Amino acid sequence: MLRKLTILGPGLLGGSIGLAARHRKVARRVALWARRTEAADEAWKLGAADEADTDLLEAVNGAELVVLATPIGVMNTLAQQFKPVLAKDCVVTDVGSVKYQVVTALGELLPRFVGSHPMAGSEQSGIEAARRDLFEKAVCIVTPVETTDKPALQLVHDFWKAIGCNVRTLSPSEHDEIVARVSHLPHVVAAAVVNVVCSDGMNPLNFVGPGFKDFTRVASGPPEMWTEICQQNRQEIGRALEALIEELSQVRAALENNDGVELKTMLKRAKHFRDELRFRV
Amino acid sequence: MLRKLTILGPGLLGGSIGLAARHRKVARRVALWARRTEAADEAWKLGAADEADTDLLEAVNGAELVVLATPIGVMNTLAQQFKPVLAKDCVVTDVGSVKYQVVTALGELLPRFVGSHPMAGSEQSGIEAARRDLFEKAVCIVTPVETTDKPALQLVHDFWKAIGCNVRTLSPSEHDEIVARVSHLPHVVAAAVVNVVCSDGMNPLNFVGPGFKDFTRVASGPPEMWTEICQQNRQEIGRALEALIEELSQVRAALENNDGVELKTMLKRAKHFRDELRFRV
Repeated sequence: MLRKLTILGPGLLGGSIGLAARHRKVARRVALWARRTEAADEAWKLGAADEADTDLLEAVNGAELVVLATPIGVMNTLAQQFKPVLAKDCVVTDVGSVKYQVVTALGELLPRFVGSHPMAGSEQSGIEAARRDLFEKAVCIVTPVETTDKPALQLVHDFWKAIGCNVRTLSPSEHDEIVARVSHLPHVVAAAVVNVVCSDGMNPLNFVGPGFKDFTRVASGPPEMWTEICQQNRQEIGRALEALIEELSQVRAALENNDGVELKTMLKRAKHFRDELRFRV
Repeated sequence: MLRKLTILGPGLLGGSIGLAARHRKVARRVALWARRTEAADEAWKLGAADEADTDLLEAVNGAELVVLATPIGVMNTLAQQFKPVLAKDCVVTDVGSVKYQVVTALGELLPRFVGSHPMAGSEQSGIEAARRDLFEKAVCIVTPVETTDKPALQLVHDFWKAIGCNVRTLSPSEHDEIVARVSHLPHVVAAAVVNVVCSDGMNPLNFVGPGFKDFTRVASGPPEMWTEICQQNRQEIGRALEALIEELSQVRAALENNDGVELKTMLKRAKHFRDELRFRV
């Protein structure tokens, strides 16, 4: 059990971490920091923390684990601000969707930093969507580097496991490459499909079935957060997009040539891969 | 209430129509025809019909409504076989995902044919996946043409409504254009993304979150059926793919230029459109 867990940022992930940690008694005290008083109050009312305030140094003071659950772009500034009051043994982790830049910057600044990416909560945002079971059976990728402190890595691993995650390990650059494909690519493609479909004048949304709804669900995610993710991981997403455009061009050629063999091969291959996921949680 | 409803084909849609029609007492008798005895027996055991057999003419005999729930490619042959025994007032409809070719061919052959496309049951197949509530609040598009018999159109409309659908009307070519975008495009794109992601050597499926699962769910659909759909509607799907490749190329350029304004505009636009669907059933 942690002495004190501090969560920075009262959004969907920060709020859900607080709810899960309190429910599963992962820490003796859960503190939450928010930039705005109203956000801190709301998080406290929803039960996401034992104490919630706008005083960053007070929130971090005495913590055994600090979780950065803010937008990626402000993590470095926050870390510089709270570093002076950080307890010597305090471990810091984050929930950012892109890892190389964050891990490089915060790893230099904080001796016991370990990068994390819990893959949960695709299209919703805000603490009103927070759930104490958000992380149950969710994949959480931790991204240590050579210099990462081993006991800190163990503590972060155990923390995510304690709130329900299946923890996996990748290097930050492996993470960014894989997640560009399994998360960032689907996001921009779903958005692009929605835009292509809806630029048609015939009210196409009146004619959609469950497949379209599932396929495009992620496109409801917060644009500010996703713009930041796209920019931070733009090289890997660009490579993944290039591979996809090439694949789609082949499909288009098969349609033009009415090549049923090629189409069926491509669809069978995808079904074979995708069916694997049906037998996993 | 229909005197006799005959369903041709014991798959997911045929089976679900039978279950729904019996549950909602839409017909006094529900007959189901299957090519194989075992399939007919299974449909009967599952309660999808009052009588299930492999004798096509017997199944159609005396029916007030016949629903073709077979693959598109065999509909014409079946219709030619059962036409001689069809009652004079019998209405025929189908459940095919592409309409122009089917409606043209069957409309010439059968005086009281009306094309339909119930949009339900994306990735599953087979009668074992059939559900009596499959059509509840599902969109069903009926596709009359100028020569379509008005009372037949009304009967088909009422039938889909009676088993739970929200019925909408489009011409066959409008249908094929819209459905190419809202259903066929997502299908081939989901398959292409799965293939691009899984051709990576790092076991990417170990690192997927709920967004990827939703986004790619349709790619588990039956490849034979989807190959047929792709070939039948290849021109419209090709046009939609062309528009998507153009859109994705713009996203790629924005990533290359690190153009946050362009990326955010595109993501905001998609969220705006997609959020509309969250407030519909």
